[in-house]
Amino acid sequence: MNKKIPVGILGATGAVGQRFIQLLEQHPWFEVTWLGASDRSAGKPYTEACKWRLNTPVPEKIARMLVNGAVPEGAPKVIFAALDSAAAKEIEPKFAAAGHAVITNSSALRMMEDVPLVIPEVNGDHLPLLKTQKWYQETGGFAVTNPNCSAIGLVMVLAPLHRRFGVEKVFVSTMQAVSGAGYPGVPSLDILGNVIPYIANEEQKMEEETRKLLGSLNGTSVVPAEITLSAHCNRVAVEDGHMESVSLKLHQPAQAEEIIAAWSEFRCLPQKLKLPYAPEQPVIYDPAPDRPQPRLDINRGAGMSAVVGRLRPCNLFDWRFTVLSHNTIRGAAGAAILNGELLKAQGYLS
Amino acid sequence: MNKKIPVGILGATGAVGQRFIQLLEQHPWFEVTWLGASDRSAGKPYTEACKWRLNTPVPEKIARMLVNGAVPEGAPKVIFAALDSAAAKEIEPKFAAAGHAVITNSSALRMMEDVPLVIPEVNGDHLPLLKTQKWYQETGGFAVTNPNCSAIGLVMVLAPLHRRFGVEKVFVSTMQAVSGAGYPGVPSLDILGNVIPYIANEEQKMEEETRKLLGSLNGTSVVPAEITLSAHCNRVAVEDGHMESVSLKLHQPAQAEEIIAAWSEFRCLPQKLKLPYAPEQPVIYDPAPDRPQPRLDINRGAGMSAVVGRLRPCNLFDWRFTVLSHNTIRGAAGAAILNGELLKAQGYLS
Amino acid sequence: MNKKIPVGILGATGAVGQRFIQLLEQHPWFEVTWLGASDRSAGKPYTEACKWRLNTPVPEKIARMLVNGAVPEGAPKVIFAALDSAAAKEIEPKFAAAGHAVITNSSALRMMEDVPLVIPEVNGDHLPLLKTQKWYQETGGFAVTNPNCSAIGLVMVLAPLHRRFGVEKVFVSTMQAVSGAGYPGVPSLDILGNVIPYIANEEQKMEEETRKLLGSLNGTSVVPAEITLSAHCNRVAVEDGHMESVSLKLHQPAQAEEIIAAWSEFRCLPQKLKLPYAPEQPVIYDPAPDRPQPRLDINRGAGMSAVVGRLRPCNLFDWRFTVLSHNTIRGAAGAAILNGELLKAQGYLS
Amino acid sequence: MNKKIPVGILGATGAVGQRFIQLLEQHPWFEVTWLGASDRSAGKPYTEACKWRLNTPVPEKIARMLVNGAVPEGAPKVIFAALDSAAAKEIEPKFAAAGHAVITNSSALRMMEDVPLVIPEVNGDHLPLLKTQKWYQETGGFAVTNPNCSAIGLVMVLAPLHRRFGVEKVFVSTMQAVSGAGYPGVPSLDILGNVIPYIANEEQKMEEETRKLLGSLNGTSVVPAEITLSAHCNRVAVEDGHMESVSLKLHQPAQAEEIIAAWSEFRCLPQKLKLPYAPEQPVIYDPAPDRPQPRLDINRGAGMSAVVGRLRPCNLFDWRFTVLSHNTIRGAAGAAILNGELLKAQGYLS
Repeated sequence: MNKKIPVGILGATGAVGQRFIQLLEQHPWFEVTWLGASDRSAGKPYTEACKWRLNTPVPEKIARMLVNGAVPEGAPKVIFAALDSAAAKEIEPKFAAAGHAVITNSSALRMMEDVPLVIPEVNGDHLPLLKTQKWYQETGGFAVTNPNCSAIGLVMVLAPLHRRFGVEKVFVSTMQAVSGAGYPGVPSLDILGNVIPYIANEEQKMEEETRKLLGSLNGTSVVPAEITLSAHCNRVAVEDGHMESVSLKLHQPAQAEEIIAAWSEFRCLPQKLKLPYAPEQPVIYDPAPDRPQPRLDINRGAGMSAVVGRLRPCNLFDWRFTVLSHNTIRGAAGAAILNGELLKAQGYLS
Repeated sequence: MNKKIPVGILGATGAVGQRFIQLLEQHPWFEVTWLGASDRSAGKPYTEACKWRLNTPVPEKIARMLVNGAVPEGAPKVIFAALDSAAAKEIEPKFAAAGHAVITNSSALRMMEDVPLVIPEVNGDHLPLLKTQKWYQETGGFAVTNPNCSAIGLVMVLAPLHRRFGVEKVFVSTMQAVSGAGYPGVPSLDILGNVIPYIANEEQKMEEETRKLLGSLNGTSVVPAEITLSAHCNRVAVEDGHMESVSLKLHQPAQAEEIIAAWSEFRCLPQKLKLPYAPEQPVIYDPAPDRPQPRLDINRGAGMSAVVGRLRPCNLFDWRFTVLSHNTIRGAAGAAILNGELLKAQGYLS
Repeated sequence: MNKKIPVGILGATGAVGQRFIQLLEQHPWFEVTWLGASDRSAGKPYTEACKWRLNTPVPEKIARMLVNGAVPEGAPKVIFAALDSAAAKEIEPKFAAAGHAVITNSSALRMMEDVPLVIPEVNGDHLPLLKTQKWYQETGGFAVTNPNCSAIGLVMVLAPLHRRFGVEKVFVSTMQAVSGAGYPGVPSLDILGNVIPYIANEEQKMEEETRKLLGSLNGTSVVPAEITLSAHCNRVAVEDGHMESVSLKLHQPAQAEEIIAAWSEFRCLPQKLKLPYAPEQPVIYDPAPDRPQPRLDINRGAGMSAVVGRLRPCNLFDWRFTVLSHNTIRGAAGAAILNGELLKAQGYLS
Repeated sequence: MNKKIPVGILGATGAVGQRFIQLLEQHPWFEVTWLGASDRSAGKPYTEACKWRLNTPVPEKIARMLVNGAVPEGAPKVIFAALDSAAAKEIEPKFAAAGHAVITNSSALRMMEDVPLVIPEVNGDHLPLLKTQKWYQETGGFAVTNPNCSAIGLVMVLAPLHRRFGVEKVFVSTMQAVSGAGYPGVPSLDILGNVIPYIANEEQKMEEETRKLLGSLNGTSVVPAEITLSAHCNRVAVEDGHMESVSLKLHQPAQAEEIIAAWSEFRCLPQKLKLPYAPEQPVIYDPAPDRPQPRLDINRGAGMSAVVGRLRPCNLFDWRFTVLSHNTIRGAAGAAILNGELLKAQGYLS
């Protein structure tokens, strides 16, 4: 692989767009050659169009790159997309229809019947669903999505249990970081010394995306997993890292050691294919009594692992535990990049 | 009532002790005349012994009062106690054995068979249990306790539903304020930009105290309510106010309006007796989509009301909602003061 | 005074507008009878037009009141104004020209030559400057302003020293609360775990407003005080309360006790006239080694006192100390209300 | 250099001790072979003795290492020390007297006449002062110190200006991170939503250490620089990163460009010697109007660079600006490691 695949970033100036640029700076397979954003930014050099909010510098090459409008003309074939949902709904189909591979973090198309919603470790085998897209059949373009930042950590932790023991019921209460709301996002007056017990549409997304992700591809459609979930979504004064208190009921009984083994041994397509962004260990169990914690554990597996702790029996269901995942890496830009890598490894990007 | 009852504060220099002093400053029935603390503080004027952390000034009379050791000699009959659990276990029985009415916020004696664990609105009728105490029979002294700061808000909100519809199962995931851990309590490096998914013994306390509080006094013992709870306790970067995400299953079906009515109409002994510290409305339902919030709702009912919001159906049980209560007022000092008022109103303090 | 003066609130839905409504709810002289806001809000009931962010409920009468557009027609004579600066620059003159008394917190007109910039305790004698306004001469309308939230605490603390010893030079470095930026104001991603060393125009405002406030009215113009200031303005993760580290040089030498006496004895027009919103003690010196602190001291004097602490010699100038004041009460709505009371007491509102 | 120098960590379980272990994990010259701590920890494996608070894992080799008591017997010759000041005062001299090279972050010995207080970029030429130590003459042991975490950023930024233009007067107001107080350190109730305007002895340390650091070695003693400083030290709700608002007066006039050039071109001994921990650019000027900020800039130069911003004229002195430095890397463990590297490079550790 001596030549990198040129990729474009749609929504390049936003919070997730910035993460794409940061994470792709040293990527062995992909090279950012095109930036797209709203008309307000179009025509400006990137550093002028964007209020960079990450604690590493803007890559030099990107800093001087001119931002384009959000139209397919002139864009490379492979697009990582980070538009807000309303814009995505309108713009992403245009790119797919023009023959682009749209690998998107937006929620706009996630629940569409012919759009794969994928976590490579969990349901990489759903990718062929993209062949049913009209875009694919007409132009070779397609859209592939990754889940909501609050669903991804949960599903990574449920997947190995679902395979071995079957997951029946899940109660989950989240404590989500402000970076999940983008920038400017949550006003500081709303979150300093406070908790907000509401994130628009988040509970519904967690519930329905989880079923689609753990479902099975049956020819040309995904049969959702028969799991009942009840989610409570809260925003807390944390910069990065979504925490989740989980209780779950399994089909088959399982001992604590079996559960921990299922998590610790969980390896999958991305690990076998040695995808560059795949964490060595997708789910890490930490046996300390007071872990995981965002400040201490958020960067495990370079932000791509889900961390679980406090496994203990549940009085109502079978087991209780706590999940942490990095919401802007594993839960957004990193998720899409790993989808892109899987697409490449399986021949969808050539 | 032209003469106030003299009361003492055990553990007067700690966080809850300070709240007792603050809340009792203008109390119509009680007057603080004695302060007790560890030997380290004994003999010093209060302001010297104590690092006052509240945002109202130390009452002038208290400021100059000398602190006594934690021994019954010289203490008034009525004692509000705020010792840490280990000290309480040793010291509170000495006071009760010496004939004092010990109204305590400590967890040390809460689950003892002959010690009433009381929220006046919920189970004021458990008070007669104190007559079974050996101390009471021998010297007239006794101990009465209030629940853990995380249990009290939950139980206030469950009680009216339990009466009308029967509560069967409860999931609860908490987001608790740092003031619940006292002072110095939680190190700032542990909580800034962080969530700690563990509070020692807290989940067990919530589960067992809730059953005792919602149980019934059967002659000389309390029969715990047959409710199954599963608690997840988390610490967040909030100064005051415990938030709780709750899912519950009822015996009898209930409509949303019936549930809201049960909460809004909930009035009880303290309201009927017009106890000075009783909130007009013990449970307040807020219909806004994003309430309650600690910063905005913590002082409703002068910090003595529990606030509920986001009532919506639960996919697993019947209903989901969010609860907030003030952990150092309703959840600690205010709870004990209301217990003291009920004891007084019912003739136990004369 | 058996009938209250009807007043209107311009910019009623914003953060300072909400404070006006909260603070005026029980006011003995003024009664809010009119609400004005942008066209977007006009015609809606207040609770619908406004996202109320204070921790006391919207006064019932106000909740149902319809919001008007920001035009003078139909508005009462006395207007408290809380528009943002750009809107104020355009709208406030229209109200003054239509005969209204515009008592404003906005920065728009503060430095205009014929507009009094007033802290009642400091320079209430500047009020007659309003008679030089063309509006006043033509219609009886006028505009009176209060200073920036960061200037007001500093100037209250400088004023008694300036009178007794003369202030020559002032270094000030601020740590300002997020509420000073209004709502939504500072994004949480910008301030959690962070300090922002920049607030647009704030340093210039502090420097020039201080000189005007401590200046003297010379016939028909204000001669600014000959004080040199150098301000450093920073934003920190505090909800309410601006802190300021100050070094100052005096004309005449002064001992620590003389300085503390100057602060403690400082009483002025508002105290003599017993204006309802006047704090008993405008400047409070706290001798504790680690005070003032926002969380503990912000509400002294009901949020209308400036609190000073840590007086100690300065190696460069004469003295160093720390100042705290409540930025949305003393620094905004409360400041304007006190201006309104002084105007009323001196016959400008009849 | 094919064999690493064995080093010991004194105070290995504390916050700075942990940083030493983290930063030395991959060090090309030094290898941690010995851990010393209080008697309470002695005899335990490191992970048992220590509550690890960093967001990278404990190096495997260290995790299993047994902790020793804080006595020289059995310790390697080179010791990095991170004891609290009281312990350091007693223990460090024992190690030096026993022939060890004590490279310490503690304040205990910093201002002793024969102890070098060194920032390699600033006054590496003070190292020979250690030869005047009685310990050195008798056993070859010695002590070398680095400055307080609040002084180091300031002095790095002053040094290039002092060399070119002469620094006369400095006003500095700090906003310091909680990690500067160690662990458990600042209670969360003291800092959430708050500022503490006091850090014990910090202002004196900044003032006197700065003069010693910028002074000159005159044979066998350091002549302090003739600079007058006035420091205001404040604690804010930031995890890592000390911010400082600075005004300064120079001997010789300097233009903004000259000052920025002095900073940007500042290279010194550690850069010339290519010491492993030396940042490429010790002082980085950021021209953005709102920088530096802890969250965004703390890791520049791997936490070893000081970042300056907002250079603008000062009304009282010559120039105003803002300084940021990483208080536990450049301000503590990293500072000592760089001192160790300079000692090694100059032959003091053989």
